[in-house]
Amino acid sequence: MYRDRIQLKSLWGKVVGAEEAAMHIQDGMTVGMSGFTRSGDAKVVPMALAERATEQPLKISLMTGASLGSDIDKTLAEARVLSRRLPFQADPVLRKAINAGEVMFVDQHLSETVEMLRSRQLPKIDVAVIEAVAITEDGGIIPTSSIGNSATFAILAEKIIVEINIHQSMDLVGLHDVYIPTRRPHREPIPLMTPSDRIGLPYIPVDPSRIAAIVITEKMDSFATITPPDEETNAIAGHLVEFFRNEVRKGRLSTSLQPLQAGIGSIANAVLHGFIDSPFHDLTMYSEVLQDSTFELLDAGKMTFASGSALSLSGDCARKFFGDVKRYKDRLVLRPQEVSNHPEVIRRLGLIGINTALEADIYGNVNSTHVNGTHMMNGIGGSGDFARNCYLSVFVTKSVAKGGKLSSIVPMVTHVDHCEHDVDLIVTEQGLADLRGLAPRERASLIIENCMHPTYRDLARDYYKRAVGRGGHTPHLIEEAFSWHLNAQRTGSMLVTPPKAAAAE
Amino acid sequence: MYRDRIQLKSLWGKVVGAEEAAMHIQDGMTVGMSGFTRSGDAKVVPMALAERATEQPLKISLMTGASLGSDIDKTLAEARVLSRRLPFQADPVLRKAINAGEVMFVDQHLSETVEMLRSRQLPKIDVAVIEAVAITEDGGIIPTSSIGNSATFAILAEKIIVEINIHQSMDLVGLHDVYIPTRRPHREPIPLMTPSDRIGLPYIPVDPSRIAAIVITEKMDSFATITPPDEETNAIAGHLVEFFRNEVRKGRLSTSLQPLQAGIGSIANAVLHGFIDSPFHDLTMYSEVLQDSTFELLDAGKMTFASGSALSLSGDCARKFFGDVKRYKDRLVLRPQEVSNHPEVIRRLGLIGINTALEADIYGNVNSTHVNGTHMMNGIGGSGDFARNCYLSVFVTKSVAKGGKLSSIVPMVTHVDHCEHDVDLIVTEQGLADLRGLAPRERASLIIENCMHPTYRDLARDYYKRAVGRGGHTPHLIEEAFSWHLNAQRTGSMLVTPPKAAAAE
Repeated sequence: MYRDRIQLKSLWGKVVGAEEAAMHIQDGMTVGMSGFTRSGDAKVVPMALAERATEQPLKISLMTGASLGSDIDKTLAEARVLSRRLPFQADPVLRKAINAGEVMFVDQHLSETVEMLRSRQLPKIDVAVIEAVAITEDGGIIPTSSIGNSATFAILAEKIIVEINIHQSMDLVGLHDVYIPTRRPHREPIPLMTPSDRIGLPYIPVDPSRIAAIVITEKMDSFATITPPDEETNAIAGHLVEFFRNEVRKGRLSTSLQPLQAGIGSIANAVLHGFIDSPFHDLTMYSEVLQDSTFELLDAGKMTFASGSALSLSGDCARKFFGDVKRYKDRLVLRPQEVSNHPEVIRRLGLIGINTALEADIYGNVNSTHVNGTHMMNGIGGSGDFARNCYLSVFVTKSVAKGGKLSSIVPMVTHVDHCEHDVDLIVTEQGLADLRGLAPRERASLIIENCMHPTYRDLARDYYKRAVGRGGHTPHLIEEAFSWHLNAQRTGSMLVTPPKAAAAE
Repeated sequence: MYRDRIQLKSLWGKVVGAEEAAMHIQDGMTVGMSGFTRSGDAKVVPMALAERATEQPLKISLMTGASLGSDIDKTLAEARVLSRRLPFQADPVLRKAINAGEVMFVDQHLSETVEMLRSRQLPKIDVAVIEAVAITEDGGIIPTSSIGNSATFAILAEKIIVEINIHQSMDLVGLHDVYIPTRRPHREPIPLMTPSDRIGLPYIPVDPSRIAAIVITEKMDSFATITPPDEETNAIAGHLVEFFRNEVRKGRLSTSLQPLQAGIGSIANAVLHGFIDSPFHDLTMYSEVLQDSTFELLDAGKMTFASGSALSLSGDCARKFFGDVKRYKDRLVLRPQEVSNHPEVIRRLGLIGINTALEADIYGNVNSTHVNGTHMMNGIGGSGDFARNCYLSVFVTKSVAKGGKLSSIVPMVTHVDHCEHDVDLIVTEQGLADLRGLAPRERASLIIENCMHPTYRDLARDYYKRAVGRGGHTPHLIEEAFSWHLNAQRTGSMLVTPPKAAAAE
């Protein structure tokens, strides 16, 4: 049944159960697993690890591409298997353990993890666990619905465990393009000039003698939960489309714009969805994650090609794609995340990067990760790779959260992931602030008047006016800079100042 | 006398006085001038502009490579000629005007200004004013002691004014390597694989019909004022050398390390100086500014090659270099700052970037620009280009300032230029914190115990302990996060809390 998936016959004898395979992973080891935003994650070996941890002490340092699906991070966190986790996660249970200081979470730019591994600036990978469609005659590993960091994990690991997922379609073979930058200091340019260029191999090349075990699974990827576009996300998309129309009119962009990148999540997905009714055509994508909106744009004939590191699809979209992979295959490619997110390629192609802000401040600094400056949500992901190096860095957010009790635009963000130098546009449903070439004082007026929800504008104008009275390139009242957040902590709303006695507590 | 410097004879008729040349610059224009850290700046045309502004309204938007010498920024600021200034400055008078909101200062990553100009995301350059050693037979402009943004300014400007500086040595001819990345979306890889590669032309290619005026000058570059190494900077250098010895021992680096970048200023210069007595050899440099220490390392036989965008030398070092250019010329190259600071090249070469922090916080965020989060010092310069994309990002600072009244390590920086994701090492005279692969809680202990001045450690430990009590991935007490800065504003010292009544004012 599965043997046609292992074309190197000498490996047939390596097929074992998940529990036995997991025995290669011992307490204290560093493990690199496949998986990027719920796609292509190793599924049964981590579950066997969690099971074993109920009986014996077992702590590992776990690296992946990005977040995992199938409740893997949840299960591992509950079983207390994780001592260290990098470079990204998005699981509520793991998040709680991270914020309690039980798991050391290292939040990294997604292009950097394997760069640091290769130069031995992170501990070496003891075991890599990689989900695969098949193994080639030479022992090459063909990934499934994501590549993420799998290639370099497998290349560097002492031992490799392959999870052959017979539920993943053989039609995926040929979708991948595995190119690994050489070790420095003798590195060649990455020979990628357009999103559709193929520069590598359709599989991960490894020495098959390091494949220590093969496990056969049929567990499906988790589906992405995508909130459908709503009035606000439609408005955000509308502002952006209008902005791009103007850029085309001014001759700065062609009607195919520049290759698009969009961050994970409902807002960025909805914004891309909004391009369906735009006048732009022959769009391309060079992104880390391809979501439903990519397929909608391909179906609508608006987009000609999409390059990513992972697919992250809803149930409906997954059924559409996997039911007819061949229909899309010549318009798609999956790459290692160090290539999808590589500064060299991002700058060369001149991407338009669209990422989601948790909050932004009146000067254009963006917080993508920390609630109230302290509690981790998910992580910075690839947003820093793109925002720093792209042609145009766009951050989108709804102007308020929690029914208006929290403003997403604040006097000063409580944590900075993207500094003022890296933010070109801020867009909310209220409007758009084009910050290119502006000084902080100019940005402040624009962000307050164009992007902030009307109920917060007077408060912000008052803050800004009093701050300007004190002078400075970036006027602030540093004793009040976080007063909105403190209000919210104490009263539940940024708009409500607690009585003095309570505030003094 | 000067005619041998203008090899295209048809341009001889363009030679005029500075005042007449400056008439090409009119109120409201955008002007791009040569100049990078006191080197190769246009000198007489800006002074003529300042003079004219005493008689008639004259406001311009001024772009340069980086900071200027010869009191140009000072004189232009005093004459109120500057409405907008980018991407960097370091003049006390201009700084005051910026902080008063009189000049709109746009603080940018130094690699990005001309990238934005080329894609017309900034207003077009009306006039470029470029200091040159000579003009070639084809009208090519040979820059002097810096390239900075001069090449792209000249290529994009409507009109070009050339300041031929006959005091600048003709021996500089051949020192420059002008490579300009092509326009996106059809850009080729930058074919630079080692710091010594020459990939462009030794002059700036322009259509000579756009050279509107030529002015002859003999004003010398300003000298850099370099504070000599002291006990603290020697200690910082010592910690870093020890760190690199360990990296070599562990096999992570060879004894030639990786190409070095060092930010402008006395501390970074002193740190590089400290490499003279190190066991490393065959060092190379790929930096934006080459300071005295570069020449000391070349003289000591420790360094084989240095690539930069500008020379910024003390009087002694300048006399040494300009007195015998030929001795150094085959070991030096000057490039456009978009090449010296290009993310693609920085990542490919795997630089070790050493930059100076104004302050750093216990979690590894760095403020390079804003005093108390509000008042601009100089600007971010190229530090962000390097810190984000290099192999190892080092930030150095003395642990205290103002005789111990200010700590350079604080609970939370008041402005973030380099986020936690971009900072690998923090080094003070107290010691070194290696933050690679660590979570925020681990970083905090290391930074407090290794880098902070002992007089502040108890205060910091107390803050951190109480913050951890509240939980979070990055524990903070946001109502107290800036209390050290507020203390200093109110009492002159971060160590002294004002009486309650005063604090409530």
